[in-house]
Amino acid sequence: MSTTALTGIGLLVTHDPELGELPDAALVIDDDRIVWVGPAAEVPDADESSDLDGRCVIPGFVDSHTHLVFAGDRAAEFEARMSGQPYTAGGIRSTVAATRAATDEDLTSHAAGLIAEMLASGTTTTEIKTGYGLSTVDEERSAHVASRLSGDVTFLGAHVVPPEYADRTDDYVALVAGPMLEACAPYCRWIDVFCDRDAFDVDQARTILTAGAARGLGLRVHANQLANGPAVQLAVELAAASADHCTHLSDADIDALAGSPTVATLLPGAEFSTRSPYPDARRLLDAGATVALATDCNPGSSYTSNMAFCIALAVREMGMTPAEALWAATTGGARALRRDDVGVIMVGARADLVALQAPSPVHLAYRPGVPLIAATWKGGQPITAIGG
Amino acid sequence: MSTTALTGIGLLVTHDPELGELPDAALVIDDDRIVWVGPAAEVPDADESSDLDGRCVIPGFVDSHTHLVFAGDRAAEFEARMSGQPYTAGGIRSTVAATRAATDEDLTSHAAGLIAEMLASGTTTTEIKTGYGLSTVDEERSAHVASRLSGDVTFLGAHVVPPEYADRTDDYVALVAGPMLEACAPYCRWIDVFCDRDAFDVDQARTILTAGAARGLGLRVHANQLANGPAVQLAVELAAASADHCTHLSDADIDALAGSPTVATLLPGAEFSTRSPYPDARRLLDAGATVALATDCNPGSSYTSNMAFCIALAVREMGMTPAEALWAATTGGARALRRDDVGVIMVGARADLVALQAPSPVHLAYRPGVPLIAATWKGGQPITAIGG
Repeated sequence: MSTTALTGIGLLVTHDPELGELPDAALVIDDDRIVWVGPAAEVPDADESSDLDGRCVIPGFVDSHTHLVFAGDRAAEFEARMSGQPYTAGGIRSTVAATRAATDEDLTSHAAGLIAEMLASGTTTTEIKTGYGLSTVDEERSAHVASRLSGDVTFLGAHVVPPEYADRTDDYVALVAGPMLEACAPYCRWIDVFCDRDAFDVDQARTILTAGAARGLGLRVHANQLANGPAVQLAVELAAASADHCTHLSDADIDALAGSPTVATLLPGAEFSTRSPYPDARRLLDAGATVALATDCNPGSSYTSNMAFCIALAVREMGMTPAEALWAATTGGARALRRDDVGVIMVGARADLVALQAPSPVHLAYRPGVPLIAATWKGGQPITAIGG
Repeated sequence: MSTTALTGIGLLVTHDPELGELPDAALVIDDDRIVWVGPAAEVPDADESSDLDGRCVIPGFVDSHTHLVFAGDRAAEFEARMSGQPYTAGGIRSTVAATRAATDEDLTSHAAGLIAEMLASGTTTTEIKTGYGLSTVDEERSAHVASRLSGDVTFLGAHVVPPEYADRTDDYVALVAGPMLEACAPYCRWIDVFCDRDAFDVDQARTILTAGAARGLGLRVHANQLANGPAVQLAVELAAASADHCTHLSDADIDALAGSPTVATLLPGAEFSTRSPYPDARRLLDAGATVALATDCNPGSSYTSNMAFCIALAVREMGMTPAEALWAATTGGARALRRDDVGVIMVGARADLVALQAPSPVHLAYRPGVPLIAATWKGGQPITAIGG
């Protein structure tokens, strides 16, 4: 393969503890990997070279929590909620119905469109959950579609109890932990349960997660979004890779997260779009927990795909410094997916990179809402910019 | 001139009371004006035609409050503020020093870069204030630079008292209302004063605004951003086109605005970037006041240029419906600039248009942070998309 040198990097933010931040830097890509990082003056010869004209380069964003496989949107529901109007047209059930009615091709092309939008916005790794099929055949279809777009697919049959299992939640749990898991597991790396008030309880969640672990899947938990409860403790007890949302945490929850490898994945897009209180990232960070930021991209409660927007929210609303928020949106996301090949710039890492139309990553929060992604590389390949 | 038809508009949001919202619409542009609007099936022949493939079309955003003529940035100050660190490196004075030191060419090219960024984000009309020169020569330079980029230039010598007039505020007011006004007025349509706690008091503001009016300038007031005070009442008394910020309002302020043609221009980017409480748009709207949204784009307290971001904030934080926020960011901005040729789609209006990568304008708030501007036309001319 040919090598490409990226030169003229005004500031290179590596998140590698030894490299740190390098002014006037360069790096060299060979195929899909970074093979050299260092001062611009010392860059070795490469087959091709691209001058970044002083721009700041950061690791590509790692979005460790999305729900991209669905059909339809819920703009009318959002508009009603934001206008203080009642809305009874279905909520998540309308997305389940639309997803079941959609062809595999429709689901794939819609999710691929969102992936393209995310790439243009600097996100180079995206986890994708199932969870709008909620039948064995539709969850398997969703997992298959997701597996064509991501290596980090999460089986979330336990997203909500579908209408046909109303008042038979235990039967649905048995389905999820049995035949549905069996059908989906070949396409998945992870299993997840929505364990919260008015969702699956801790015993149901334990049943499903344990079955997933026995089937070889890693664990993730939708935990403590709506209320205090036992979900975070369950995630830590089962050594889940991540407890996601973490909006309502007790001191014991914070201690448990801080004393474990389980990442607290915060999703401020959901709080933004539902007018809910934000999680307290500062408290988690001060306790020593590992924090990730993700978009939660989904049509109901957080239809943003934009990690820079989530960084700006994390700084404004959650007590994170700009540097902490950037780390959480890159390296933190990689930790939440138990990956060490992304979210960092160092020799041997994937060449997943973002060049900013700005001299520093502080601008991602300092200039909120402004598209500052000048260029993205995924696996060493340049991605066409937004609108280009 | 040749005519261009835009066809295949899935939803046309005109803000013209008679036209309203038209599904399956088209329009025809001749030179810089709209010459026909109606159902797609009835579109007359035109020299050229562009199919928008079902996209939603809205009026271009009208940003009636920006401070684009400056040099340098204040990312370090922002980072310190958001990290809870003390910061004593100069604040606005550092921008004044950098602006005074910059050449006209540097100021022009920097402001033009921001205008280009705004056009790519759907903003087709931009008011620009002076206010980082604060000497007669530097304010005149700033006004001249701004006048090359906008027809709505505002003289804001009374932005802050410059260091060389410390403890001589009245002398500075006399300068602003005298020689500085005289030098700047030829380039300006408007005059503005920052009348607030720790800024210019109501008597000083009245002196400056009255002098500006006598010189033929329209009036605007930075009012009630930091504290309750008499600035909004002064704006209404003097029939200012707009009272801007309006973060702290008494019942009497609300009544005064509602009973006057003075627009309340809200700037949520400033509250976002300073972690301040947001103004209560709902209260203003319910009282019958006219509300505009603007970015306040400036390097100190709101370095966003993105109106879609401000719309999303207005819906999340200020009690506006998506439709009210869109109106405020287009037609409301036009009212704040006392213009009827922009902010609306109708025969005779300027062909300042935005096509959204979305089926409805609700998505501007429903998909926060996502760049949804598929195309922009200013005066009938298509603008290159972001990154294109």
